[in-house]
Amino acid sequence: MSDDKERLDRVRVPEMEEILGEALPVLDDGFVRLIDYMGTDDSIVQAARVSYGKGTRTMSDDRGLIRYLMRHRHTTPFEMCEIKLHVRVPMDLWRQWIRHRTANVNELSTRYSIAIDQARTTRPDEWRLQSDINRQGSEGGVDVETGQRLTRRETEAQSFLKEIYEERLELGVAREQARKDLPLSTYTEAYWKIDLHNLLHFLALRMDDKAQLEIRQYASIIGEKIVSKWVPMAWEAFMDYRYGSIILSRDEIRILSLINRQQAAADKMLSETGFTIKDASEVKPTLEGRELAAKLERLGVEVPWKGKG
Amino acid sequence: MSDDKERLDRVRVPEMEEILGEALPVLDDGFVRLIDYMGTDDSIVQAARVSYGKGTRTMSDDRGLIRYLMRHRHTTPFEMCEIKLHVRVPMDLWRQWIRHRTANVNELSTRYSIAIDQARTTRPDEWRLQSDINRQGSEGGVDVETGQRLTRRETEAQSFLKEIYEERLELGVAREQARKDLPLSTYTEAYWKIDLHNLLHFLALRMDDKAQLEIRQYASIIGEKIVSKWVPMAWEAFMDYRYGSIILSRDEIRILSLINRQQAAADKMLSETGFTIKDASEVKPTLEGRELAAKLERLGVEVPWKGKG
Amino acid sequence: MSDDKERLDRVRVPEMEEILGEALPVLDDGFVRLIDYMGTDDSIVQAARVSYGKGTRTMSDDRGLIRYLMRHRHTTPFEMCEIKLHVRVPMDLWRQWIRHRTANVNELSTRYSIAIDQARTTRPDEWRLQSDINRQGSEGGVDVETGQRLTRRETEAQSFLKEIYEERLELGVAREQARKDLPLSTYTEAYWKIDLHNLLHFLALRMDDKAQLEIRQYASIIGEKIVSKWVPMAWEAFMDYRYGSIILSRDEIRILSLINRQQAAADKMLSETGFTIKDASEVKPTLEGRELAAKLERLGVEVPWKGKG
Amino acid sequence: MSDDKERLDRVRVPEMEEILGEALPVLDDGFVRLIDYMGTDDSIVQAARVSYGKGTRTMSDDRGLIRYLMRHRHTTPFEMCEIKLHVRVPMDLWRQWIRHRTANVNELSTRYSIAIDQARTTRPDEWRLQSDINRQGSEGGVDVETGQRLTRRETEAQSFLKEIYEERLELGVAREQARKDLPLSTYTEAYWKIDLHNLLHFLALRMDDKAQLEIRQYASIIGEKIVSKWVPMAWEAFMDYRYGSIILSRDEIRILSLINRQQAAADKMLSETGFTIKDASEVKPTLEGRELAAKLERLGVEVPWKGKG
Repeated sequence: MSDDKERLDRVRVPEMEEILGEALPVLDDGFVRLIDYMGTDDSIVQAARVSYGKGTRTMSDDRGLIRYLMRHRHTTPFEMCEIKLHVRVPMDLWRQWIRHRTANVNELSTRYSIAIDQARTTRPDEWRLQSDINRQGSEGGVDVETGQRLTRRETEAQSFLKEIYEERLELGVAREQARKDLPLSTYTEAYWKIDLHNLLHFLALRMDDKAQLEIRQYASIIGEKIVSKWVPMAWEAFMDYRYGSIILSRDEIRILSLINRQQAAADKMLSETGFTIKDASEVKPTLEGRELAAKLERLGVEVPWKGKG
Repeated sequence: MSDDKERLDRVRVPEMEEILGEALPVLDDGFVRLIDYMGTDDSIVQAARVSYGKGTRTMSDDRGLIRYLMRHRHTTPFEMCEIKLHVRVPMDLWRQWIRHRTANVNELSTRYSIAIDQARTTRPDEWRLQSDINRQGSEGGVDVETGQRLTRRETEAQSFLKEIYEERLELGVAREQARKDLPLSTYTEAYWKIDLHNLLHFLALRMDDKAQLEIRQYASIIGEKIVSKWVPMAWEAFMDYRYGSIILSRDEIRILSLINRQQAAADKMLSETGFTIKDASEVKPTLEGRELAAKLERLGVEVPWKGKG
Repeated sequence: MSDDKERLDRVRVPEMEEILGEALPVLDDGFVRLIDYMGTDDSIVQAARVSYGKGTRTMSDDRGLIRYLMRHRHTTPFEMCEIKLHVRVPMDLWRQWIRHRTANVNELSTRYSIAIDQARTTRPDEWRLQSDINRQGSEGGVDVETGQRLTRRETEAQSFLKEIYEERLELGVAREQARKDLPLSTYTEAYWKIDLHNLLHFLALRMDDKAQLEIRQYASIIGEKIVSKWVPMAWEAFMDYRYGSIILSRDEIRILSLINRQQAAADKMLSETGFTIKDASEVKPTLEGRELAAKLERLGVEVPWKGKG
Repeated sequence: MSDDKERLDRVRVPEMEEILGEALPVLDDGFVRLIDYMGTDDSIVQAARVSYGKGTRTMSDDRGLIRYLMRHRHTTPFEMCEIKLHVRVPMDLWRQWIRHRTANVNELSTRYSIAIDQARTTRPDEWRLQSDINRQGSEGGVDVETGQRLTRRETEAQSFLKEIYEERLELGVAREQARKDLPLSTYTEAYWKIDLHNLLHFLALRMDDKAQLEIRQYASIIGEKIVSKWVPMAWEAFMDYRYGSIILSRDEIRILSLINRQQAAADKMLSETGFTIKDASEVKPTLEGRELAAKLERLGVEVPWKGKG
């Protein structure tokens, strides 16, 4: 360690300098803007080497080391990179966003200032139907006519609430009270600062299929337009070992080791561990069984209960 | 330390057991409910004694030790107590509440479930005027007639938005999207778990005069109806050394040491350090000067620029 | 939600009450003692139901819901349980332990108090050899004679340092300075309070094969003797979905889908993605290749490069 | 807010660039090195203005705003600055340092690498005596002869432990076990990254008179040589409103308002609230009374019980 006591130059990523301050548009009126960053892939390696010292010399190169750290969930070196964004987000999404506690936040205060005069609007073709299977999800869109009606009514609602808000301000009502009936679709703005490890955790959850479409759009922009440029090796490792990975439980491991070799034993275990149930004479997957089927398909393994019954 | 290895009984506070599960009402439809707690004043002492060991024997008693810890901001022993509440709060307040990051939270999800069919309503006499002096505050109420008009319009707005929300659900719109124009006044519910140190920090900020009236009501209920019973010694120490304390800056200390002894020097320093400005021939306080005046009044010291000019 | 506003009884786990205060021994002079706990499996379910509301009614039972939450890394309901332990640990282990930041801690201060007069001692058969493969690990033990010599020398070192410490105290040296040459093996004590989610994270890392043997012993005691009694359903789910799980990366998924069906394609991909290298005419696994082999063995899948060359 | 969407240049502080990478020496072999930083005074203002919007326009200038934020403990804008240091610190100090949990850390691992071959040594004139009054403090030095003896014995102890460590490594003992009897004075190194708000909190505690001399030296170097250059306005505000401030409790405020005006009432209250006790016929201060006396002296107010009895 003592050999790096010479003068340092500050880490700089040319591709990041290029987009500093640029508002990358999201939704109808939102954005993500890069304000500042600290460190890059090199800084992850630098921090890992202080921890592991000569222990890391055998790692063939920086990319290998970063991939090793990601694979083995050695998370602290990733915390050595920090990023600051300026975002404009509807409040209903912000309510989800703010649940990630390991970040520094300065949000526009509607006690101090008048609220942003803009709410997230929905085009007729953007209305989604409630999913029957996934209680927290959506599935497919509404028909054209319904979409038009919903959008028309949305405009009515937003106009009316805007009128109410302005009326209150004109009558001298305190801003902290006037805002109380603003719709959740009202845009807010914030400075949001977070380290790379926690940002990747945010992205893993919010780029996921199960995340709400709108927040997924923010997460994708942050991941693909910013993080991939900032720390390309860490991003690649994240996509390989985390975003694109699957986790197999203890039971799933056992079942997989039986499939194709002891079909009867596999079937028995599937039923005993609750992946399948027998309904009349038909073998059907449970919720967890359907999740296993999706993993097997990704693994190129035939789903055992297909065609049974 | 080794002498306390015998069997323990779990800490139990009879006054807390009595209010377990009871919904203490706040606002028109909100509440705070005690769900569980860990520890009491004794646990603070117990933890402090593991840290300071025999060093604490000289403290005359538990109360003295707790007061010493509070006075010297030795915060870790207070973290050894934990409390869990169930709260029902309008979303605009919840947006402030959730900014306290060192807490565990489970909030009702309006992606999974239908939103609570209740919004915070305002009586005609509850509407407050925007403060001229304090940009984030309110001051005084509106006149009766205006209050009635504001409440009538609030009812209209809330009814309309409720209609819109129900209409969307009936048309099959996904809950995650249907909720987007709910008013911020809509109630939400959450389990909220926090340690005593961080709870007192929350209360110090939210029981403060500068906090919004509505969140102050929640904070007062939590402080006065729950914390004061749970950890009476810590609560008393908090009121004495924190809530009821004032902080004097370096300049304020110097000025105070001059007042009554070297009036001219005090006046000079007040002006030089920006507590007063001379406007025409009149000496007037700045923002920071007004803050100092409030402190001097609490200290029984005459405000030097009173009656000057 | 509103239907549970009636009176509550505090959650109590009889099996936990039995071990309250009991010092469970670890190493030669360490221990773990349960001081208090908040919640149990029921509390996880209770918190999840406030979040997901009626959305959880379809879950057949509490066990099913807890397993679902664990499987899908819905971590916040697990944070609703809290535990407080009193531990006695050598300082070199404590230095690892304290790296888990999301806990409340009160440690014995050797500024206030005289240090504990006990250091971790090593029996002749407990000395382990440095692993050649794993830079941070140990592998096998030393021979009997060497073990005896090492233990003899350990005694000499610990006695000498004890003498030095006592000499300093006798000469009136400040405790904060007298302690500076105590060996890292000196025992310390602390109160340690943490929520269940973060405790399970601690256990996942510290019960792992790669963790140092000594801290693994603490983690196992905490897991098997305490957590398994406290929250039996969450513990079972943790063992199934987390401790006993394996993670397959994007490349591993692809390779697995090729094995047994397109052997040549699998071999090609293994080499291209860096799981194997060709050394002379022999196909050999890389570090990541060895990790994959271990996963394949658990999955009952033949390792493709076995017997190649 | 929308008017700042143009291109940004990254914040750069010339005085900080000059010291990047330079090892600022502390103690006999320690150092603090600046590795990187994010933001400066401007960034605090920038973040505050997104929160308070037009509400901040009335603040005459940036300095005034920063001072207002510091005075009113509006801490979040200070979190928008981040700094990364490389430090070399004896392990006994590091054990205190690491208690500040809101930081990112990568420490040299003595499982992976051989420990640093250097321990903190003490010159004969550096040995301090245990304070009688302050259980956790030191007061005055030992005499020359004792100092020489202590230093001689320190050298013996450190040499012996070094020998033991090397012997173990030569015999092939695993590094994770070989290290167990290293003295706490052994140097360690770490990368330490923290936001400005939490750094100032660290400095407030560790630059304090009551902090151990050695850690105070690190804190002073960080504060005076680095932070004062990085964020000069925030540093000045910190020194005025936090480091140089005093806090008066509710009772102290009341007593101060009585002194000089109702001496008898003040005396009565001092006794009733436990600041003084009557011992024989003498009025003596308690521990809290001595603390009050120190505050009164700073305020230029005569201590009421002086010369009483």
